[in-house]
Amino acid sequence: MADNRQILIRSLPSGALAADDYELVTTPAPAPADGEVLVRTLAITIGAGQRAGLQGSASYAGAPVTGVVMGGTGVGRVEASNVDGIVVGDLVSGPTGWQDYVVLAAKDARVVDAGVDPALHLSLFGINGLTAYFGLFDVGAPQPGETVVVSAASGSVGHLVGQMAKIHGCRVVGITGSDAKGDVLTGRLGFDAAVNHRSDTFRDDLKAATPAGIDIYFDNTGGDILGACLRRMRPHGRIVCCGVVSQYDTNDPQPGPRGIPGLLVNNRVRMEGFLVFDFAERYDVGREQMRSWLEADDLVSLHDEVTGLDQAPSAFVDLLAGGNVGTRIVRVAD
Amino acid sequence: MADNRQILIRSLPSGALAADDYELVTTPAPAPADGEVLVRTLAITIGAGQRAGLQGSASYAGAPVTGVVMGGTGVGRVEASNVDGIVVGDLVSGPTGWQDYVVLAAKDARVVDAGVDPALHLSLFGINGLTAYFGLFDVGAPQPGETVVVSAASGSVGHLVGQMAKIHGCRVVGITGSDAKGDVLTGRLGFDAAVNHRSDTFRDDLKAATPAGIDIYFDNTGGDILGACLRRMRPHGRIVCCGVVSQYDTNDPQPGPRGIPGLLVNNRVRMEGFLVFDFAERYDVGREQMRSWLEADDLVSLHDEVTGLDQAPSAFVDLLAGGNVGTRIVRVAD
Repeated sequence: MADNRQILIRSLPSGALAADDYELVTTPAPAPADGEVLVRTLAITIGAGQRAGLQGSASYAGAPVTGVVMGGTGVGRVEASNVDGIVVGDLVSGPTGWQDYVVLAAKDARVVDAGVDPALHLSLFGINGLTAYFGLFDVGAPQPGETVVVSAASGSVGHLVGQMAKIHGCRVVGITGSDAKGDVLTGRLGFDAAVNHRSDTFRDDLKAATPAGIDIYFDNTGGDILGACLRRMRPHGRIVCCGVVSQYDTNDPQPGPRGIPGLLVNNRVRMEGFLVFDFAERYDVGREQMRSWLEADDLVSLHDEVTGLDQAPSAFVDLLAGGNVGTRIVRVAD
Repeated sequence: MADNRQILIRSLPSGALAADDYELVTTPAPAPADGEVLVRTLAITIGAGQRAGLQGSASYAGAPVTGVVMGGTGVGRVEASNVDGIVVGDLVSGPTGWQDYVVLAAKDARVVDAGVDPALHLSLFGINGLTAYFGLFDVGAPQPGETVVVSAASGSVGHLVGQMAKIHGCRVVGITGSDAKGDVLTGRLGFDAAVNHRSDTFRDDLKAATPAGIDIYFDNTGGDILGACLRRMRPHGRIVCCGVVSQYDTNDPQPGPRGIPGLLVNNRVRMEGFLVFDFAERYDVGREQMRSWLEADDLVSLHDEVTGLDQAPSAFVDLLAGGNVGTRIVRVAD
């Protein structure tokens, strides 16, 4: 029986997350029962939203506990199967968590194309791509020619939102935390402009980059960036509330921006939160569309890779500090 | 030529509005030019939203100035007409402002049914009723059986929203600033429950009154009441942002509620501001529906009346302090 390295949540952070809030233990790999498969984890993805699951109050992810394997989505190879329709060697995506081996129930193991890099199943064809797709098109409802602004724009969701909005004929402005990230957006991904929210001239820069105002703001951050965009919204604008990365790495979230709800009334702005799970019935439609854009080279899926399961905690801490460009992937095995 | 009493804005309030921010002057009544009518004001309505027009930063009502007649909607009798289709004796509704006589251009003078109390043209058949109707049905999109909560629930818009939601088959909870107002809602208007936001037990009371949570929150106040309701929203709930009465009577609005945008994401809540003017093409439809409810005694339009133009400033100050039940009407002449 193989060794199973597992990364457990040792402590719930009271302030910023630290790598030693986790610990690595080694246990025997589990055995699958009827209706289950044994999976060897190949890659996992880490997203900022997972930090919310460690906060004191329960988020949609449920109340946090210690002493358990850190959760997360991964792709792995089936090493033993007691499930009809899944065979050894299949590639599956599912809630592997941060560990080498996991037993998944049939309902949690989704067979994916083994001819595609596992990382792509965790980025464009995974929750990140689907979140970008349904958030932008279903919640945001963009029209060609409109101005779309996205925050955390070089992040796993943001960089896809911006590219999809460009494909749709919108003017796209990305908000990032560094000029270097902004250069990736404008230089490589076709964004029309990028603005650094850490600059002293952020609000002026945002204004200059959105001379006609903002029709759609795709919000991955909340906080002061949301406040700044709120003041640039055009009449009948839409704010797509996708994530709150500015508020995750703390147990003391700041108040909402000034001007809510007053500015929403004056400008007839719609602000709408969504969870991608509500669109599950249409995932296949979204994946097919994204696959065709990828194959036509209209869309790039950026990955920010780290190698080694033991690197996951520090990769998560770094992510929360804004260290990634694109989807953060931890390669666990080949 | 008749004397025209006019109430001018003397000073822009830096804190709470005071009656002596206004002054009464007497000038000669104006004469109508071609395409204009001379109107004798019979009644005006005062709404909390007008306070926003006096704030330092321009609202949708435009930037404030002093030395001009206080604006407002009124109903009056035509005393001279240079407009085809409007004759002396007609009743018209329009932007009379706070004065005995006004000259209105044809486009600003809407002829209304002279057989109906002018006050009703300023409440149910005026902006208040239309705001309640389109805000609830078009923005809120209620379903029978859903729980609707409305703030400033005994106010000009709120008391109509609640009754319309009851007609539609919803469970309705009103939030007011006194137990006496709450008694009017439950005792006379058919609300299922009322909660006093000035009570120390407000949040517990709200929870008890909405055991299944809130599907639609019709927000007339913003501020802490919005914050409390935000925490009671059910998945896919809707917050209709109609007004911000808690923030009008100040030049220093408070920050938005904690939990924006995080709670919007977790519960997939839509928060949408609106202005009734966007529904102008369908005003007739709304008025006809409300007229039929009124005639069937399904709906009561509450008026809170003051007599005498000179009473308008103190009536406005009192309104901002929550002194009214229903639409505040100032009777100017018979």
